[in-house]
Amino acid sequence: MVELGELKEQSKAFHTQPRFSIMYLLFLKRRVGFTELKDLLGLTPGNLDHHLRKLEIAGLVRNRKILSWRPLNVIEITEEGAASFREYAISLKELLKRIQ
Amino acid sequence: MVELGELKEQSKAFHTQPRFSIMYLLFLKRRVGFTELKDLLGLTPGNLDHHLRKLEIAGLVRNRKILSWRPLNVIEITEEGAASFREYAISLKELLKRIQ
Repeated sequence: MVELGELKEQSKAFHTQPRFSIMYLLFLKRRVGFTELKDLLGLTPGNLDHHLRKLEIAGLVRNRKILSWRPLNVIEITEEGAASFREYAISLKELLKRIQ
Repeated sequence: MVELGELKEQSKAFHTQPRFSIMYLLFLKRRVGFTELKDLLGLTPGNLDHHLRKLEIAGLVRNRKILSWRPLNVIEITEEGAASFREYAISLKELLKRIQ
């Protein structure tokens, strides 16, 4: 199975943007810790934070602080975010059917 | 069949970048006039030119001036560009299989 990391290495001149990868991972996992997300995507904390803010303003993800023995920052996809990403992914699949 | 224009309207917060759309169209059509490409993608001439330069530097497209009753500017995908885009599209299709 192809992983996101491999995809990133191919054809940097036209690859999908980080927010696509963030939404893809959140769609599959529903919620991911900030640190895990940062490591999975190979982004700096500042860069991930920038993209998450954009997605949060668009109502697609939300940020939950969980109080445990140390504060945990967990990112969740919203219902609207999941619906919007699914619709987009299905359209993209349709477009990609023409590529053989 | 879904068209590129529709895709663009959905979820601007995470959609693919213009260079993906340029490569997609060039992969299917092999060569497209600059003006047609600009209109298909709804980009300004300056913006399209910027993206084409990036793709040209990466060796993925080439720019051909054709002398007719007026000079025509035609953009072609290179063999390397087509191979690279196909590989990327196939990986992306694999990733999108997980989205139901």
